[in-house]
Order: sequence, then structure tokens, then C-alpha cells
Amino acid sequence: MAADAVDLVMAAAAEAAPEWAAAPRSRSSALVAVANALEAHRAELVDLADAEAHLGPARLNGELTRTTFQLKLFAEQVDDGRYLDVRIDRPDPQWPTGPRPDLRRYRAALGPVLVFAASNFPFAFSVAGGDTASAWAAGCPVVVKAHPGHPRLSRRTAEIITAALHDAGAPDGVFALIEGEDAGVQALRHPALAAAAFTGSQRGGLALARIAAERPVPIPFYGELGSVNPVVVTPAAAKARADEIADGYSASVTQGAGQFCTNPGLVFLPADGDLLDAIARRMSGASTAPMLNERIAGGFEGTSRTLAGRPGVRALVWPDDPTAPRLLAMDLAAFTADLDAASEECFGPLGLAVLYERIEDVAGALAALPGQLTASLHAEAEEAGDLGALAGVLAGRAGRLLWNQWPTGVSVTSAMQHGGPFPATVGPATTSVGTAAIERFLRPVAYQNVPQELLPPPLRDDNPWNVPQSIA
Amino acid sequence: MAADAVDLVMAAAAEAAPEWAAAPRSRSSALVAVANALEAHRAELVDLADAEAHLGPARLNGELTRTTFQLKLFAEQVDDGRYLDVRIDRPDPQWPTGPRPDLRRYRAALGPVLVFAASNFPFAFSVAGGDTASAWAAGCPVVVKAHPGHPRLSRRTAEIITAALHDAGAPDGVFALIEGEDAGVQALRHPALAAAAFTGSQRGGLALARIAAERPVPIPFYGELGSVNPVVVTPAAAKARADEIADGYSASVTQGAGQFCTNPGLVFLPADGDLLDAIARRMSGASTAPMLNERIAGGFEGTSRTLAGRPGVRALVWPDDPTAPRLLAMDLAAFTADLDAASEECFGPLGLAVLYERIEDVAGALAALPGQLTASLHAEAEEAGDLGALAGVLAGRAGRLLWNQWPTGVSVTSAMQHGGPFPATVGPATTSVGTAAIERFLRPVAYQNVPQELLPPPLRDDNPWNVPQSIA
Repeated sequence: MAADAVDLVMAAAAEAAPEWAAAPRSRSSALVAVANALEAHRAELVDLADAEAHLGPARLNGELTRTTFQLKLFAEQVDDGRYLDVRIDRPDPQWPTGPRPDLRRYRAALGPVLVFAASNFPFAFSVAGGDTASAWAAGCPVVVKAHPGHPRLSRRTAEIITAALHDAGAPDGVFALIEGEDAGVQALRHPALAAAAFTGSQRGGLALARIAAERPVPIPFYGELGSVNPVVVTPAAAKARADEIADGYSASVTQGAGQFCTNPGLVFLPADGDLLDAIARRMSGASTAPMLNERIAGGFEGTSRTLAGRPGVRALVWPDDPTAPRLLAMDLAAFTADLDAASEECFGPLGLAVLYERIEDVAGALAALPGQLTASLHAEAEEAGDLGALAGVLAGRAGRLLWNQWPTGVSVTSAMQHGGPFPATVGPATTSVGTAAIERFLRPVAYQNVPQELLPPPLRDDNPWNVPQSIA
Repeated sequence: MAADAVDLVMAAAAEAAPEWAAAPRSRSSALVAVANALEAHRAELVDLADAEAHLGPARLNGELTRTTFQLKLFAEQVDDGRYLDVRIDRPDPQWPTGPRPDLRRYRAALGPVLVFAASNFPFAFSVAGGDTASAWAAGCPVVVKAHPGHPRLSRRTAEIITAALHDAGAPDGVFALIEGEDAGVQALRHPALAAAAFTGSQRGGLALARIAAERPVPIPFYGELGSVNPVVVTPAAAKARADEIADGYSASVTQGAGQFCTNPGLVFLPADGDLLDAIARRMSGASTAPMLNERIAGGFEGTSRTLAGRPGVRALVWPDDPTAPRLLAMDLAAFTADLDAASEECFGPLGLAVLYERIEDVAGALAALPGQLTASLHAEAEEAGDLGALAGVLAGRAGRLLWNQWPTGVSVTSAMQHGGPFPATVGPATTSVGTAAIERFLRPVAYQNVPQELLPPPLRDDNPWNVPQSIA
């Protein structure tokens, strides 16, 4: 893509920004229109996605449903208006630090946002995915850098979006698709850009984060970089529910060929008992799904081989097929001694079981883990009272703690947190899934003693947008 | 300060963190106890501050009042609990993207926070200032790096705080004072540190921000770096209220020897009329206040002299006394041609008047300004309807827009925003003044399907902390 073309795209985004930010009702209608247009092309889009990403129609239909649901959920957020966090302080001559002026604060849209699409969710984290939906909802134009893993799907999605936005009366420039690494970097460096969001590998994400930080005017870069999502199974749970846990674990770790940032790649199991064998039996029999592309398949093969060669690691499931599910095991002491290498993410259907003698020893290893998107605890109900310290350690290293559930399949709700301590995410105070994702693309602005006709509508006394106002 | 000592301080902060975060009622009592202890030593503290910072007892008494008020206001925030942003999603088998689990999300304390004290507010932005109060309120232990401009005051304040916290039963390690640049950098690099806050110069702040970003685990660095706080006076206002505006401007720009990050160093005036002369008369007669220290006085002399030497700049008020108020002027074309140099902050009592022929031409210069903490518009009431575009440009470059008021004297309220686009602040989505300052020190964590006894108290059904829960 020519440098001039990126300039034009960014200029159009900057020009569209004020009108888009100023018209929430049009914005929410436009989001719904995009959702409906994608639904209207469902069969065509799913076919294209399957041809390029090989994830199968069932999964892809579900993912498209999630994608259109997200767009409509964010449209509701726009209409609801709570995301604006409107605060109004009336003048107070008796305020203890001196007369308080009329002060009104809300969160304004940041401006043009660049979204780097991910390979592993060709709908939900790609052109019309959660980052795009939440940035639009906040009032920001969006430029999407297409993922090279599904170029035809990206272009077709962009065409459908562009037509839907045009029909809905959205200003030109509210959306554009760009392609190619150079174009992405050029957009990231463009002075008109206000923020960027990324879902992908740690290596790629950190390189882009550095570019964002080294701009003359640095901008927020929200990178969701994945993790190994530790799971701890207590001895009591392993004993009482070995089959159920083996079923759940092997399904979660192999689902979608293991290509999820919430894939539970690391599982702590009691050294004695049958659970490890039960998991191995299921994983060796698991059907092999094609991976997203050759590069990812090659990465899986290389990373899993490196991991298998670390000190103390045994291969329990290691089929000839280089993309079939694999299971490794090591004991807790070996894991602790080699923590950095052993806790590195292997993107694909690989599980590393860490075998412990005493569950009291597990917390130390968990506390030393790098930041995680999720952490899961599988235990019996009657143990809950005794597991406070362990749960505290897990919650301290992760953005989401699960009890007797599996981390794949991230629900899109208001209480979801998809983002953990570094390096799971670059901005651990934010989420890239759920309604709170909108907060990434807003900036507070206060108005002091400003006449009604110059106030942004949500700060006015007549409240024309009908948004919640917290008045003191 | 020895390296070992910094290690001990950081280890104690890390150890205190869980207990401090887990006991909001004790925390709010401790904040009130600190406020009361500072009040009980008011005369002694104000004397010490005046001896070291030369700001005069009236200002320093007012600043101490603000400081103890802030502590109590943040104690109220802790009791109120809204800062936890509790969201509870009940299970919903009909959720459109698949059965929704029980999901509960709140904002947890980040962990130990390092506060770099400022020179120009020896109480309100120093040892017991707003950064300390808001980090404590969030549930974070605080290590303050003392400003070398008021060492005796810093140590005495620390003694009073330490005793008050001890008497209030707060865990050891919740507060410590460290001194010296090396100790500050060592603490900033310490693995136990979770975030840092800074108020001061752009140069110093950006150097520290870089250190925070280059850690193996980067942490948020909230730097409030100051700005020139542009003021625009319309021709109608200049004509109707020249004396009032001249009084207000000269008072704001010379107050506290101009040593405020909200000092209105840049003012746009109509080229014809008497307003510039009226300001010059007042500033040349303004009394000279001593500056904080020799280094700042030297910086003021050097920076103002450099600015006076830029092309097209005339000196209107330039007394022999190197720390007396100074007034420069240039026309809009010259300002626009030399924008980077002419918009650089000069910390001290200096005003640069930019003279325009047509107010329509001012918006272009304003749009090109670097990010600002504040921007002010002085105009007649009947003009408001015509100034929408200009107000929009100002609000786009600043964190707070004022109408017919002056930016110095930042009120501590829920709707205050003290933070603007880069480089006014490193994190433009945050504020360092007002109740929203607490948000800087929190991180969302979600709990999925977790039994009641393992949930943090604010997420439990019986809600023992009695905090607002948003339940869906």
C-alpha cells in the first residue's frame, strides 16, 4: 500500500472524528447497521473465513454471531451513556478549599484509532471485531490493519462495512482497511492517530508498542499478547473427578487447534493418581484440526520442540503429525528451576503438566509466573475455605480467576476482564473484551464556568442526550 | 541513601500491600488520622515550609488546608466504594453468545506506588499530597521520593505521618520516605513497584517515564509535566472589560511567583486596544516574590531570556530584578512561525502576549499547540453562540476549558480534570487532582464461577463492605 494512501486514510479519519463523536444516536444506529449487514452476508463470510483460516463452519458461525452481538452490545452502551462518566459539580462558595466553581467533566472520544487484526479470530478480533466496535462506540474513527492470514475475508468484510456505514449516513473516514506491515507501521506513526489496539504475539505486540511509545507524541497502545493461563487441580478434585477434569482440560487445550490466547497451556496436577494418564489418553486420541496457516504451524512445531527439550521435560503425547495435540510433563522442582522457558506461550494444542507432591508448594511457582490473562482453580466445593491464599496468588497474577471452569470461550458481558498483568497485556488496567473495552478510547475533559451553549451536550442542564449525570 | 535501604523499604511496602488493600475501613480511618495529625502540627509545618520554599504563610496555610481536606475526601471515597466499579453478571443460559457464567469484576489495588514529590507545592503535591492520598485510598502502600527543595519539611511531615499511621494501626510499610535521585531511580526500577506518580518538569518527568517503560516489567508512570495554559481574550471582552481582565491575568500569571503548572503563560489578545498596555502596567508594578530556590530562579532567568531573543518577540516588562514578573509580546504570524520555541513552558512569572488581527486566525495556532493542562476563553456572554469552533479547538488540546476564569487555583472536586494531552501529562486519560485520581492505582480483576468464600468482599452477595454493586 502506497505511503500516500495511508496519509489519505488517516486524514479522512481525522476529518470524520468530530462529527462521529458528536452524534451518538447516529453512531449506535450505524453499529447496528453494520451488524445487520454482516448477518445478511453470513453464508458468504463464513465460507470465505473457512477457506482462509480453516476453523470450520460451526466455530466460524458462532464467532460471527459473537461479532454481530458485540456490535449491538456496544450500540446499547452508546445509547446508555454511562461510559461518558458525566460528573457535574455545582458552584459551592463554602467548599473547604475555596469557592468551588461550576465544573463539569465527561470522557470525550480520543480520535482516530488503529486496530491491528488478529489471525485466530477472523471475525471477533479482526476487521469488525471487538476493538473496532468499542472504538467506534467511544466515538473514534477506526482504521484496521488487515491480518495477512485472511486477506480476502478482510476485504469483503470491509466492503460490507463501508456500504453499511454509507447507507447509515456515517461520515466518510469513519472506517478504512489498510494492508501490509509497512502501512501498519506508517499509520501507527501518523500524527493524526490517537490510539492503537492489537491482539497477537508478544514479540509483534511489543515491537509495535515500542513504536507507539517512541512517537514524538506517544499514544496509548493496547496490546493483548496472550499467556499460558495456568490451571491448578487439587488432589481432592483430581481424585473425585478425574474423568470430568480430563475431558474438560483436553477439550479446552485442543479446541480450535489450541489457537486461543486463553488456551490453558500449563496445568498443575498432583504427582500421584490417574489424572495425568487420563488427560494423555484423551489428547493422544484427539482429532487433529488444521492450524491457521503455515507460519503458525511452523511456530507451534518449533516452540513445542524447544519446550520438550528443556531439562526434566518428558513427552507423553507426541504424534508424528506436527500439528496434532501434544502433552508434556515435568515435576514442580524442574519447572521452578526453569520457570522463564517453561512458562513461555506455545501457540497451539500443547499442554505442559507440572506435577506437584504437595499443593502448598504450588503457590511459590505461581507467584513467580509472568502476568496471565486467566488462572483457573479446579477443586472440591468443601475445599474453598482452605484455598484463599492460593486463589489470592492466582488473582494477583491474572486478569480473570476461574473456579471449576475452563478459560477458553470468553463471554462478552459487562463484568468480563480480558487483560492481565504485563506481559499478558500492555495495559493491565484495561480489557479488550466486554463493555468496559470502550474505556480505552476516551479521555476526560473538564469544563469550568462554561455557558450552556458551549458545553458538550452530555454536560448541559437540559441533557439532550439523556445520559446519566452524577451531580454534586 | 544506601541501596540496601531502598530494598528494605520496597520489601516492607510489598509485604504491607495485601493487608492494606483488604481493610478499607481501617484505611479510611488512617487517612483521617494523618490529616488530623498534620493539622495538629500546622504552625510548625507552615514555618518549616516557609523557611525552605518561601511561599509565605497565607499561601502555605491554604495549601495545608487543601492537603488535609484531600486526605479526608479520599477517605470518603474509600468508604463510598464506587471507585471499586463492582460489576456482577448473574449466570444467564440464554445469553446470545452461549451460556453466561457467574462473572464478577472489581478494581483491585495495584500494589506499592512510588510518588515523586514536587517542589512548588510542599504540602499538596509533596509527601502527604494528592498522589499519596489517592494511592493510599486505592489500597496501595506509598513510598515518597522527597523533593530536595524542602528536605526538612519532608522529613518532619514523614515523621508525623509515620506516627499517625502507627497509632491508627496501619501495617508497617504502608509509608516510607526516601531521599536522593539515585534512591528514586532505584525504587523506580524495583521489581516490587507497581506504579509511579510524578509532578514536575517535562525534562525530568520524561526521563523517569523512560526508566519505567524500560523495566523488564513496565509499570504505569503518571507524570504531570506542566504547560503554558493558553488564554484567549476576544475583542469584545478586551473592549468591555479591559481592567478586569488585566487585573485577573496579571494576578494569575504572577501568583506564587508564577510557579504553577497551570500558570497562564500564553495569552492571545487583539492587536488593537488597550488591554496589552493595561496588563503591562500591572505586571511592571507587581511585587516580586522570592522563587522556590536558586535552580528554579536560574531556570526562569535563562528560559525567559531565550524566549525574549526569539524572532519577533518584544520585551514590554523586563525589570532588572531577574525574578521579577516579565511580559513579552509578539504578533500571531511570528508566533505561528516559531511555535515550538514560543510555546515552551517558562516556569515563573512570565507572560507571552500573542497579538492577533482577526480572532478567526487564532484557532489555527491553538490547534498546533502541544497538549495543555488548561485553556481559557475570555469573552462576552452574547458571543458564546459564535465561539463553538474556537472552544472545540481549545478543549481538543487541553484537559480543562475555562470561561472567564483563570486556571491557577485548581479545585479539588469530583469533576476536576488535571491532566491534558501529551506532553502536559504522560497519561492523558488520568487526572492527578480530584477524586478520579484514585483510578490510576487500580486494576480490574474478574472472578468466574468462584464460590462466595473465595470472592473478595466487595464481590460477595452479602456485600460486607456495603459498596455499590452493579448487577446484571
